[in-house]
Amino acid sequence: MTSFKLLLLPGDGIGPEVTAEARRIVDWFTAQGIARFETEEDLVGGSAYDAHGEAVSDATMDTAQAADAVLFGAVGGPKWDGVAYDKRPEAGLLRLRKDLGLFANLRPAICYPALADASSLKRDVVEGLDILIVRELTGGVYFGEPKEITDLGNNQKRAVDTQVYDTYEIERIARVAFELARTRRNAVASAEKRNVMKTGVLWHEVVTRIHDEAYPDVALEHVLADNCAMQLVRRPKQFDVIVTDNLFGDVLSDIAAMLTGSLGMLPSASLGAPDEKTGRRKALYEPVHGSAPDIAGQGKANPIAMIASFAMALRYSFGLGEWADRLEGAIATALDQGLRTGDIMQDGMREISTSDMGAAILKNL
Amino acid sequence: MTSFKLLLLPGDGIGPEVTAEARRIVDWFTAQGIARFETEEDLVGGSAYDAHGEAVSDATMDTAQAADAVLFGAVGGPKWDGVAYDKRPEAGLLRLRKDLGLFANLRPAICYPALADASSLKRDVVEGLDILIVRELTGGVYFGEPKEITDLGNNQKRAVDTQVYDTYEIERIARVAFELARTRRNAVASAEKRNVMKTGVLWHEVVTRIHDEAYPDVALEHVLADNCAMQLVRRPKQFDVIVTDNLFGDVLSDIAAMLTGSLGMLPSASLGAPDEKTGRRKALYEPVHGSAPDIAGQGKANPIAMIASFAMALRYSFGLGEWADRLEGAIATALDQGLRTGDIMQDGMREISTSDMGAAILKNL
Ligand SMILES: CC(C)[C@H](C(=O)O)[C@@H](O)C(=O)O
Ligand SMILES: CC(C)[C@H](C(=O)O)[C@@H](O)C(=O)O
Repeated sequence: MTSFKLLLLPGDGIGPEVTAEARRIVDWFTAQGIARFETEEDLVGGSAYDAHGEAVSDATMDTAQAADAVLFGAVGGPKWDGVAYDKRPEAGLLRLRKDLGLFANLRPAICYPALADASSLKRDVVEGLDILIVRELTGGVYFGEPKEITDLGNNQKRAVDTQVYDTYEIERIARVAFELARTRRNAVASAEKRNVMKTGVLWHEVVTRIHDEAYPDVALEHVLADNCAMQLVRRPKQFDVIVTDNLFGDVLSDIAAMLTGSLGMLPSASLGAPDEKTGRRKALYEPVHGSAPDIAGQGKANPIAMIASFAMALRYSFGLGEWADRLEGAIATALDQGLRTGDIMQDGMREISTSDMGAAILKNL
Repeated sequence: MTSFKLLLLPGDGIGPEVTAEARRIVDWFTAQGIARFETEEDLVGGSAYDAHGEAVSDATMDTAQAADAVLFGAVGGPKWDGVAYDKRPEAGLLRLRKDLGLFANLRPAICYPALADASSLKRDVVEGLDILIVRELTGGVYFGEPKEITDLGNNQKRAVDTQVYDTYEIERIARVAFELARTRRNAVASAEKRNVMKTGVLWHEVVTRIHDEAYPDVALEHVLADNCAMQLVRRPKQFDVIVTDNLFGDVLSDIAAMLTGSLGMLPSASLGAPDEKTGRRKALYEPVHGSAPDIAGQGKANPIAMIASFAMALRYSFGLGEWADRLEGAIATALDQGLRTGDIMQDGMREISTSDMGAAILKNL
């Protein structure tokens, strides 16, 4: 039986309670002998800061480097609002992404049929929606230097952020998008602001070249990022795969997630390059939702996004694609059974707790 | 009778035909003796490039500098896709914004009751929507240096854009937002990414200080830009005024516009600082929609956004706020009369041409 090292980083807010439900599923796989998951749990975000003054410790980073995959909950909360910039909870997540080289962030936005009415958009606009946002995750304005605030005197400061992209960074994310499009509806929309940004000009040039050289069979469309945001609101089903940079990806994937009415349901995967020897990719899986400190610890959180993140791990890290399908099926069944956590509660359905939802999905499995 | 210099820059695509309708209204004001508009017309964008190799000529810039206001149509189209970066149609618009110092871009997103069903969002989510996006327009990643592509050899290039904000730039746009909020529902949401960007950290700090010092009566909320995009989709009516930087403003204002289902209806104003002696602000007014080259020259374009842009000019540049209200009323009446251009056509309404819509609004006036 194959054995995998899985690092759980529950983080802050509702992170721990949703991770606990995912963990039950993980342990079930081991107990069933489907695969053997050696799990470890560690701190990240505000809770790591409280424990040892950093949003992620070097020791935790070592464990993450050695793991086959990381399952990440959520970080942040008002408690840490005053913390220094480089120690804030988000810094832990950003270090994990950067140091593990997780350049490809996959964010599926799927409208669960059972939840189509929960969307603020009309049912026919979002029903059956299935978009995959492929977001570049280790470059752009998130990590470019200089990134600083300088005192100019006379009560004036100057803040600077730098968006940088090299050809190879665009090439590799474009390849991921085209490869994934081939497993779907074979269409990629590439979003940038080439009419204003030089990084957009290079993005457009490189994506076009990779397409023409290696993926001429995939339909490629270029769309300005502002127009892409508009089109997501207007007619989201026109998109299959959207590939875009770190910052536009942050905004566009949040819009796409919100369209579905299923925010508490959406997982994401962040993948590195395949290892030259083993072919394995470093990987981190996390829900799209945040740490929701307002409902933390009350058993109200929706564990589905977290469990669906583990399903993505089964698919992309553990070669268990069929089990990923089954786990996703078990989630859909729980919804069809009328089970709902508070965030997705609807008339006529049964409102249940975080752990009851976890238990129901496990039972369906 | 007060006399004003008005520069019309119709631009490309549908720009000329919608500007022609606005011009009829302008001339009507002069003919009625309400104010005297001395209009001049000039080239911008692709049509300026075709005529003299620049997206806006120095001579046109001189005229714009001398004008009390500029009425701008739209620029761009596939015809100019191959044009060098610094001569592309958009460069004309960006130069106007920068050289005239038009740092405050006001983009109202209003859901016309007659059009609420045209939105892709549910009627109750958008009915009565009235948001004002106040976008910083002369700073940020649009103009920061370095902005360049460097050849690194080995088939690698590096593209760089720089987002820069100084304290004073944030102060003045914050003041505009707070002042305008006081004339509305007295609430400002300030959107940035302070969890990732240093410009966001400074933005947050300065907006907070200006608020506490000078506008403590206005409700202020800070929201991360990605969450703001989400909230616009989820529950847009929670917002009154949103103040944000140039790039986030580009995306967020397009989302807000699309929510209303009234994209062809939405105007914008771009204002400079008040002149120290005269108190006058340089100003440019333009529709939110683009140049729509696919329907150009067919009499199908909706002139309402352009005419509503002139209404904003009456309000902000010409001290004719009451006439602005009347002109906006004349637009609403045309809609209530069941008149529609193709873009907003609905069952049971009457589809009319660009010039018929202009004529109907003039008649209602
Ligand atoms: C928490 C934050 C740093 C992060 C980001 O901006 O990438 C989040 O918004 C996300 O999308 O994963
Ligand atoms: C045409 C383009 C340069 C412009 C911008 O990005 O500002 C447009 O999208 C806008 O919002 O006015």
